[in-house]
Amino acid sequence: MSESVPVHFDLRIRLFREEKYFGPGIAELMERVERTGSISAACREMGMAYSKAWKILRRAEHDLGFPLLEAVSGGASGGSSRVTERGKEMLTRYRAMEAAVKAYAEEQFERYFGEDIP
Amino acid sequence: MSESVPVHFDLRIRLFREEKYFGPGIAELMERVERTGSISAACREMGMAYSKAWKILRRAEHDLGFPLLEAVSGGASGGSSRVTERGKEMLTRYRAMEAAVKAYAEEQFERYFGEDIP
Repeated sequence: MSESVPVHFDLRIRLFREEKYFGPGIAELMERVERTGSISAACREMGMAYSKAWKILRRAEHDLGFPLLEAVSGGASGGSSRVTERGKEMLTRYRAMEAAVKAYAEEQFERYFGEDIP
Repeated sequence: MSESVPVHFDLRIRLFREEKYFGPGIAELMERVERTGSISAACREMGMAYSKAWKILRRAEHDLGFPLLEAVSGGASGGSSRVTERGKEMLTRYRAMEAAVKAYAEEQFERYFGEDIP
């Protein structure tokens, strides 16, 4: 790579009890389910296989010990999905912590890498 | 998972120009090469395949545009490896940024998850 391309950073936070499952991917999936009412629509938007979405969601729910999504039954459309109340709380806190830490990381990155690598 | 196990967080920072290759794994590998003078010894300590170490190192070097390790030829032992000067600078700055951001993230985690998920 040319050194004319500046160095960037990526920061990723995961929350977990014993296994690192709740991270940026699940957070985005949950936000899209909340907006679309549908796991499959959320997967399509993200280009994620439905089977993968189920797998990471179930692992995160198992690790945390509470459900993140729930089925909404009934209605002419047959049923959809939504984020549970605890899932919403988890997501809100995750995004708030992430935003605060990323803002601070921007400052630290500028401090340590503002002039690129000598 | 039982809710009696508290929620933790994991934070991972990667540095890159175009591809996310310089992260905790390479940093640890470089530190171990610096201490042991040997990529294979570093790999053994980390339980990492030598081929994997080479792959991630070469990709990171290609992305950054400068070498992270260099061969030290000669000597009765046949030759060893060490971290380049720019590699050391990169590593020092990476660890300094990481330590600052992790300390701040601890505070933010306490703020948002100090009482676990309601």
